[in-house]
Amino acid sequence: MTDERRVRDVGEFGLITLLTAALPAEVQSASGLQLGIGDDAAVWQPTPGEQIVVTTDSLVEDVHFRRGWTDWESLGHKTLAVNVSDLAAMGAIPRLAVISLGLNGDERVDDLLALYRGLGGLARRLGMTIAGGDIVRSPGGLILHVTALGETRARRVLTRSGAKAGDLIGVTGTLGASAAGLRLLELATDDPRRRATTADQLIGAHLRPEPRVALGTALVDGGATSAMDLSDGLFGDLPKILAASGVAARLDEGTIPVAAAVRALFPDDWLDLALRGGEDYELLFTAPHHAWDAIEAAAREAGGMVTAIGEMGPRGSGTLQIELVGRDGERHTMPRGAYDHFGEG
Amino acid sequence: MTDERRVRDVGEFGLITLLTAALPAEVQSASGLQLGIGDDAAVWQPTPGEQIVVTTDSLVEDVHFRRGWTDWESLGHKTLAVNVSDLAAMGAIPRLAVISLGLNGDERVDDLLALYRGLGGLARRLGMTIAGGDIVRSPGGLILHVTALGETRARRVLTRSGAKAGDLIGVTGTLGASAAGLRLLELATDDPRRRATTADQLIGAHLRPEPRVALGTALVDGGATSAMDLSDGLFGDLPKILAASGVAARLDEGTIPVAAAVRALFPDDWLDLALRGGEDYELLFTAPHHAWDAIEAAAREAGGMVTAIGEMGPRGSGTLQIELVGRDGERHTMPRGAYDHFGEG
Repeated sequence: MTDERRVRDVGEFGLITLLTAALPAEVQSASGLQLGIGDDAAVWQPTPGEQIVVTTDSLVEDVHFRRGWTDWESLGHKTLAVNVSDLAAMGAIPRLAVISLGLNGDERVDDLLALYRGLGGLARRLGMTIAGGDIVRSPGGLILHVTALGETRARRVLTRSGAKAGDLIGVTGTLGASAAGLRLLELATDDPRRRATTADQLIGAHLRPEPRVALGTALVDGGATSAMDLSDGLFGDLPKILAASGVAARLDEGTIPVAAAVRALFPDDWLDLALRGGEDYELLFTAPHHAWDAIEAAAREAGGMVTAIGEMGPRGSGTLQIELVGRDGERHTMPRGAYDHFGEG
Repeated sequence: MTDERRVRDVGEFGLITLLTAALPAEVQSASGLQLGIGDDAAVWQPTPGEQIVVTTDSLVEDVHFRRGWTDWESLGHKTLAVNVSDLAAMGAIPRLAVISLGLNGDERVDDLLALYRGLGGLARRLGMTIAGGDIVRSPGGLILHVTALGETRARRVLTRSGAKAGDLIGVTGTLGASAAGLRLLELATDDPRRRATTADQLIGAHLRPEPRVALGTALVDGGATSAMDLSDGLFGDLPKILAASGVAARLDEGTIPVAAAVRALFPDDWLDLALRGGEDYELLFTAPHHAWDAIEAAAREAGGMVTAIGEMGPRGSGTLQIELVGRDGERHTMPRGAYDHFGEG
């Protein structure tokens, strides 16, 4: 028997009670939390002397997700994951999140409970606390907003501005799976690629990205000089490190790590998916050559992998300066800037 | 010469640069801020040993504001003020905020700069830091989202659950001005009430509410037992303290503080505006009788005023239990619950 009640049937306060109950208990009472959901604000006692890392991000319906393409539990997971990914990119440990929902009142309560189960499941796995939030009416589509707080146990944060000429450029995991998954969701359901068993894996990478928390700490421990998470694609995000650090990049096309499934299902444009596709939520970082072995070992220890894909060089006269060295040895200069959420292209 | 550029003309990164420049420098580099706008996340060093108070709130176009009724600077002020008000209600000192904007790209850049001037002006006055945020595309109306962090210098927070039977019920300032201001905005411009010189004062109370930070600290110092800020009106918010504290309330109608301008412009329903009108952002609190003089003195010291409007009593058999004693001595029981953002009423 399904519960067909809508938000307006249970009301704001009924919904808050139901959503709170959908979160695992330990996620509402982790150490340090003095006062959680239900008052004007939450009260949290950070570890004494800790630096607090703060990030905020929204998912807007029909911009960042489509109801028909995601299940609600995955959507809850992703809403928290994209925020935690920013903390991971700083090398921080996620501790606490507050959630804000913009609803029009017509949402099925059951769907929102599934959203909270997905969100709560990831929070529990990461040892995070959901400390509160708010619900507002949004006449347009659904808006999911998270602010996440972390701590920097390692006493150092990985910014975008620390890359030096001569540093290796590295990425965690593989690139392009999320963009390939999105491409599969866009395809007609009778497209043969949608029926490949590997399709689910790519769609999963798009719907349920895994924030690289342990790898972020591994990068700090290993001596990385800069990092950021890949949300706008390698060619969209790398220019941000270049601009912040005042360096240029040479990428070796043949070293870009791409999942076999992406190559298999998109034989013509797998490289484009890897270079320009967004939402991988892997970490892009730099490190001096002498630190590479330590970083590789720390990443393996954390259950992940890192790949060196190029090297930073001194800044020339241009502004962005990414040089891509093809497998044929030919050099291409990429003038493309970062992805602009309001741009034409 | 006015600048008619739209968000899509300057792009996401151009806009971030312009908005950052619109914030006062001291608001971007207050003490404790290690890393501000422009990286994956902000990094903040709280005062060692401090408890962190976290609150989050959104203003959605055509739900919480209308473009035609507010100027952009006031809107920026209010966006931050409603969040800080939650911190004030805990007795906390606002320290840091992150801002998230949902834009469709068609907004005038100049309007958003005015928004940031309003926001930055209040932040400067409160000694707050704007540490970062994000911008997302929102196909519907404008969405303004703030998460604010505070510290509890006083080592005690004012929750909703501390009220005791026998405590006096108090409010800061006067009630009903914001609702009266909203009513004036809704009236036809040729309504004579809109032309009263006091109309501007009430409209100002609606558009630029002042968060009661100093009064919040005064309440902690003076020995208040509970507090919350009045966003949904006295009859909407008082039940939340009653429910959290397990008490009932008796209010003395004749003591409710209402600004003279509200009585003058709305002779028929000024009391209703004071009891049911929302968005006053004054503080509702409770305190034992013996603490009242200290609280009154602390409030005066903070440049504000408090008024005792009733007393808490033991919880009876009902659920909400607000008894309003009219000036004729007659007792009315108010069954009305809290304002429901999705309710019919």
